[in-house]
Amino acid sequence: MTRIYLDHNATTPVDPAVLEAMWHLYSEQWGNPSSIHWAGREPAGRIDDARDQVAALIGAKPRDLFFTSGGTESDNTALMGVVLAHGSRGKHVVTSAIEHKAVLDMLAFMESFHGVEVTRLGVDSSGRHSLDELRAAMRDDTVLVSVMLANNEIGNINDIPAMAAIAHDGGAVMHCDAVNALGKIPLDVGALGVDLLSVSAHKIHGPKGCGALWVKRKTPFEPYIRGGGQERGRRCGTYNAAGIVGFGKAAELAGERLSADYVTTVAAMRDRLETSLMDRLSGVQVNGAPESRLPNTTNLSFAGVDGEALVLNLDLRGIAISTGSACTSGSLEPSHVLLALDRGEKWLAAAIRFSLGATTSEEQIETVIEAVVAEVTKLRTLAGSA
Amino acid sequence: MTRIYLDHNATTPVDPAVLEAMWHLYSEQWGNPSSIHWAGREPAGRIDDARDQVAALIGAKPRDLFFTSGGTESDNTALMGVVLAHGSRGKHVVTSAIEHKAVLDMLAFMESFHGVEVTRLGVDSSGRHSLDELRAAMRDDTVLVSVMLANNEIGNINDIPAMAAIAHDGGAVMHCDAVNALGKIPLDVGALGVDLLSVSAHKIHGPKGCGALWVKRKTPFEPYIRGGGQERGRRCGTYNAAGIVGFGKAAELAGERLSADYVTTVAAMRDRLETSLMDRLSGVQVNGAPESRLPNTTNLSFAGVDGEALVLNLDLRGIAISTGSACTSGSLEPSHVLLALDRGEKWLAAAIRFSLGATTSEEQIETVIEAVVAEVTKLRTLAGSA
Repeated sequence: MTRIYLDHNATTPVDPAVLEAMWHLYSEQWGNPSSIHWAGREPAGRIDDARDQVAALIGAKPRDLFFTSGGTESDNTALMGVVLAHGSRGKHVVTSAIEHKAVLDMLAFMESFHGVEVTRLGVDSSGRHSLDELRAAMRDDTVLVSVMLANNEIGNINDIPAMAAIAHDGGAVMHCDAVNALGKIPLDVGALGVDLLSVSAHKIHGPKGCGALWVKRKTPFEPYIRGGGQERGRRCGTYNAAGIVGFGKAAELAGERLSADYVTTVAAMRDRLETSLMDRLSGVQVNGAPESRLPNTTNLSFAGVDGEALVLNLDLRGIAISTGSACTSGSLEPSHVLLALDRGEKWLAAAIRFSLGATTSEEQIETVIEAVVAEVTKLRTLAGSA
Repeated sequence: MTRIYLDHNATTPVDPAVLEAMWHLYSEQWGNPSSIHWAGREPAGRIDDARDQVAALIGAKPRDLFFTSGGTESDNTALMGVVLAHGSRGKHVVTSAIEHKAVLDMLAFMESFHGVEVTRLGVDSSGRHSLDELRAAMRDDTVLVSVMLANNEIGNINDIPAMAAIAHDGGAVMHCDAVNALGKIPLDVGALGVDLLSVSAHKIHGPKGCGALWVKRKTPFEPYIRGGGQERGRRCGTYNAAGIVGFGKAAELAGERLSADYVTTVAAMRDRLETSLMDRLSGVQVNGAPESRLPNTTNLSFAGVDGEALVLNLDLRGIAISTGSACTSGSLEPSHVLLALDRGEKWLAAAIRFSLGATTSEEQIETVIEAVVAEVTKLRTLAGSA
């Protein structure tokens, strides 16, 4: 059976060139990069190279970026790091209702255990934020605003430069979770105007277990993982050298794709998929804001169809898609992102995320169109709603 | 130049069988283990297998063990997790002055930011703890005792069962950092009598960037990395599936070595190294307690020799050893472990750690003996102290 993977927002296949770079580290340069003898010096140099590569992809200075175990740790670290560093100067944080759970769950914890107060911005029925709502949410004691660059479920790209300006006007620090934007669109920390940015390797054909957090110089910040002084004390623990080198190579390759025609190519395939399904099937609705959306993502609701059943039926045909975030797959709870769009139960349970990637082909898209049309029709017939 | 690696307490070469298992994950089973489609199901199954393998090495039930990004995160998580879970019931923690920085730095932070009070047990001139001192340190509000199983710098094995009994008598939870003991001696969480145990993959010929924390059922505990609900909410973030599978394979192999004659073989080589150096050189002192020590470790001070210089000179001969923990290599501060032994400046700066491993050969040991004798003699001559 042919396997087609359209779940690139969940994770991506590791690029063979990334694997090759990692293999060299694992087999030849396995030393502890903190060791001063031969076994440590070589991987230490490779980490420096990787830092340059990842920094280049986000327009950052390498020394302001440190490696973590992934996007979740980066988000957790950013939130707690900024709030703790502000101490008694303020405990109010503004975020959005459709952030990743790595942000929302951490902030809920900080509410319970650290006396933090959190305002969660709502969204309209297309998942758009209101800048006026953000302005109104700012308080004298607001120390942090945390909003993602692109939503992992619906693909919406937020107006982070405008939000960062509002945060800064209010004296707050701006954090941005860019985990699902990295490698999909060009991004630059200077143009975004943010103070902290979270990224992850496995969303850009790098390995799982490696991410990074960029913290602009002079941003009030406390480390989260503490110990032996690695990363100048900002993130301790033995360097995951192979993972870091893999992240570096993946960042380099992502930069090359973005400099070429990746965005237009993948957007064309995504549009073909979306348009064809909406043309050929009735009762299809786009969840998200097509005018400002990741080029690889479409989230569609098929009225009268149970999304979970559609995922399983397509899986039997070798097609990998999802109802939303992989993190909460298998959960019986509906997506908090789609709930926030407030479009009604009918559309909520019927939502499917298609996320394309660098390995997606036009031929695969045609196969998926036929399969989705067939399965949606079948499920509607079974449900008596065709 | 022949390269000899006697710094296995810093890290270990990745076993080829571990790499092979990881390679399969990276190249074939790269899906997100939380995904319910084909790409997720296969790596999810492999994670279950790895959990069984690591649990078997520590005599634990697999479901009580979850994976982390390494020993430092495991230690951080254990300390904060237990203290937060106790809330206002108590804020006093007992630890030892010679713990790893992942414990000491985290507790220092918790003193500053969380109102935690910490008592640090001293050691005698051989690095031994006093059970009476622990008993005296226990208070009504003591919620946690954290002492490592084996010290990474001097190799001392602590009497954890006795310490855990004292902790429990005082109503406290017992955490044990077993990062440097795992794979070097047989260990069993039941026999140790502890409630939480930290371990790491890269010390047992597994990959860097992967560790685990075992938490006995019903132990009061709050997660540290929060987000998408992985590991039943105890440690969130996308599973580092390849790292976890590598850890599992490494644990299986370590178990096989311990069941064979690893302990006696490596101890014999370590004793040959130690005895030969003490026989052939004057002014050599063992730092540590030979009667209860890891079989692979010896920490020796060579009077009149600068340890750092000896490390560099042996590095030029292709021999990798260290002055102490890799985490603090290159730091100008003396080792906090050796400082705690309080044997005087003369011995402190002259200390060298030799840590043998599964790939160490008798021939390598003979080469190292000759090289150390030559370099110590040379350095003493240069210093005019021969």
